[in-house]
Amino acid sequence: MMRVAVLASGRGTNFARLLEAEGTGELGEAQIVLLGTDRACPAADLALTRGVPVYIADAKSDGMSEWERGFLAAAAEHRVDALVLAGFMRILSASFVERYAGRILNVHPSLLPAFPGRDAIGQALRHGVRVTGVTVHLVDETLDGGPIVLQEAVEVWHGEDPEQLAQRIHAVEHRLLPLAVRMLAEGQLSIHGRQVSILEG
Amino acid sequence: MMRVAVLASGRGTNFARLLEAEGTGELGEAQIVLLGTDRACPAADLALTRGVPVYIADAKSDGMSEWERGFLAAAAEHRVDALVLAGFMRILSASFVERYAGRILNVHPSLLPAFPGRDAIGQALRHGVRVTGVTVHLVDETLDGGPIVLQEAVEVWHGEDPEQLAQRIHAVEHRLLPLAVRMLAEGQLSIHGRQVSILEG
Repeated sequence: MMRVAVLASGRGTNFARLLEAEGTGELGEAQIVLLGTDRACPAADLALTRGVPVYIADAKSDGMSEWERGFLAAAAEHRVDALVLAGFMRILSASFVERYAGRILNVHPSLLPAFPGRDAIGQALRHGVRVTGVTVHLVDETLDGGPIVLQEAVEVWHGEDPEQLAQRIHAVEHRLLPLAVRMLAEGQLSIHGRQVSILEG
Repeated sequence: MMRVAVLASGRGTNFARLLEAEGTGELGEAQIVLLGTDRACPAADLALTRGVPVYIADAKSDGMSEWERGFLAAAAEHRVDALVLAGFMRILSASFVERYAGRILNVHPSLLPAFPGRDAIGQALRHGVRVTGVTVHLVDETLDGGPIVLQEAVEVWHGEDPEQLAQRIHAVEHRLLPLAVRMLAEGQLSIHGRQVSILEG
């Protein structure tokens, strides 16, 4: 089994989806053993409800290096093999990322390299694109710049309510993220530089 | 009628497609009245074969401002209303672009703002994206940065020959560019800042 910690800061919808996917067997050899968060949030509440251990520390007041030290201790305790960033609102240090090199997945609501960073959906709408989408990528020391595992396009409809677009994008995230976690768990991802090949399952 | 000059430097496949679309009525009120080019190229040969006047001057030896002056004279002579950049390999000056503000279309083989500039398909492949595409946009003074009219995603297949991907992308260009020309000709494009609305035809 690949023991996974999910890092989240918000509503935890991707975390909830991962728990659901674990229940249905969609995660294959992956098992969610820890939630890491930087604040009291619905994701933390959900973890506690579902019996998933939570590491929670206030990165804002204590600083991110303190947060990382504490999280790494918890991850060691729970023998964590891989990390999934699911709406985690902090930048991880290069040394932290190095610790889990090639074993950290992030989901981002745009077709990277377009619209990295915060509010990717708002950025895309302000830019006036007709197509945006979702990227699941491996995390390296760059902001949203690591090797791309999966992408899927989402059309922007004329005159669409931004909230409706966001919902359609989140629906794609909920499909791609569990798939990428399973691929990582089952050793299907072969990485050469920026090129990720997906080996047959 | 909207009188259109096409600017091209290369094989002229998009120019050929526009001529074909004019023949089938796909361009609506648009009529191709001039080809501008900066070198002897297949696009120029095609124009001559098809009876389309050509403005040709060597921008490399004479300089681009000289080229623009000559082209503007030819465009005035042929009462050109709008320009279509179809593989034109020169950067147009801000004052030239201003002359035809809101009436210059460009087709680019990526989902802008990702991969502007040269060799967009190669850039996308080296970045390891799983989705790229085609953008038709209005030209402003920025490199491939003007308001977006149409976009369509093209999936990158694992292990695909780059030449095959290029062909699939060009097929989408050949579909989107005539459509955008017709929309411009028929007054369907409503531009507010970066936002382009398409009015009902």
